[in-house]
Amino acid sequence: MISMNEILKRLEGRLIVSCQAEEPEPLASPEMLTAMSRAAVLGGAAAIRSNLPQNVAAIHSALDVPVIGLYKKVYTDSEVYITPTLNEAKALLETGCEIIALDATIRTRPFGEQLKDITAYIRSNSDVLLMADVSTLEDGLLAAEMGFDMISTTLSGYTKETLDRAKTGRPDYGLLADLARKFNGEIPVFAEGRIWTPEDAVQAFQTGAFAVVVGSAVTRPQVITQRINEAVKKYQGKI
Amino acid sequence: MISMNEILKRLEGRLIVSCQAEEPEPLASPEMLTAMSRAAVLGGAAAIRSNLPQNVAAIHSALDVPVIGLYKKVYTDSEVYITPTLNEAKALLETGCEIIALDATIRTRPFGEQLKDITAYIRSNSDVLLMADVSTLEDGLLAAEMGFDMISTTLSGYTKETLDRAKTGRPDYGLLADLARKFNGEIPVFAEGRIWTPEDAVQAFQTGAFAVVVGSAVTRPQVITQRINEAVKKYQGKI
Repeated sequence: MISMNEILKRLEGRLIVSCQAEEPEPLASPEMLTAMSRAAVLGGAAAIRSNLPQNVAAIHSALDVPVIGLYKKVYTDSEVYITPTLNEAKALLETGCEIIALDATIRTRPFGEQLKDITAYIRSNSDVLLMADVSTLEDGLLAAEMGFDMISTTLSGYTKETLDRAKTGRPDYGLLADLARKFNGEIPVFAEGRIWTPEDAVQAFQTGAFAVVVGSAVTRPQVITQRINEAVKKYQGKI
Repeated sequence: MISMNEILKRLEGRLIVSCQAEEPEPLASPEMLTAMSRAAVLGGAAAIRSNLPQNVAAIHSALDVPVIGLYKKVYTDSEVYITPTLNEAKALLETGCEIIALDATIRTRPFGEQLKDITAYIRSNSDVLLMADVSTLEDGLLAAEMGFDMISTTLSGYTKETLDRAKTGRPDYGLLADLARKFNGEIPVFAEGRIWTPEDAVQAFQTGAFAVVVGSAVTRPQVITQRINEAVKKYQGKI
């Protein structure tokens, strides 16, 4: 395992590509997602963000870049789905990934589990870095208190309280600016969510991002096609 | 085989996704390219444009949309590489694709072969439709005379004479407008080349495109990453 400082040095000022697909999507296999990730790395991605232990493990063993692992799982008693319980965290610890991302919103977790217990377990059983996926500045402050190594704007727009921020289709530069100002380089802040164009990525760095995560724009051909298609249909008056 | 009119009806006003990768690119296999094509169709693509007989055949047999087949092959005695000789055309006839795309520039073909002989062979041996990949209005006029069923702006920017048009990174709306005006609906004109955003696609339809082909922006994660990465590096003063 390379050291925390070494990993951060490799990510600073760089692009990270999130490479995800879930059944029944056509690209939802470790082979396909590894090939997509390899293409992203050839294009200049400094790290890959990957969902589900089998994909995280495949990508980690095939490629020579740090992998941010997460494990999306929906439980009926909670809205938290990004590495929501200790079980998902344990599964990720088996993959070899360098960084584990967890939902770090203030929302209640499944079975009433506490985020601090999950992170404490990870800390005492591995050297993996912890990324807090947050939706607000408040989330970020709590994550920092809890000792997360890095904070990402991932969940802005994807919680009930922040839904309106997703409606614009634009990245949440406001939250990014608030977090970057607050932590002032002490904790790296990652920009993630609705970053589509080269201009979006540049603006994220201008706003203080330590690194920028691009997902759908690179690795979701279905979503990219849909997005162009909807603009065309709108122009044609069909929607 | 569905009829020409039926195929054109299915393509009019729609998006076509070009899904290509060549060895040693990570996605260069019929399985990967079929999965990518399937994702594009789920996102709203009305047809797939595909390179190499094995990929064209795999995509055609897996998906329920028309396939535009081409066969890129480089010969040392010519700059023409999109279905350059009768051999490549014959190989595409075995794939079942509904449309064959050929370089229809005025440039000399390998072995001094004549485009009209290749199209005559295809016409007398199949009902496949013929798409002329052109670089200039002159190419388009000759293709129309030769009886091509459709014309595409594919090669603008990729011949010696038109290299400057690729430098802007923008689609060649000028050529599209010229072709659309000239053929005035008699021969469908397809917009292809450097179409990256929803706005680009809408502008192509505004300019008179019968259908719009999007490629790298949807199916080339390496190129998309590279494009974002270059903007970031430029901003950071690294290039």
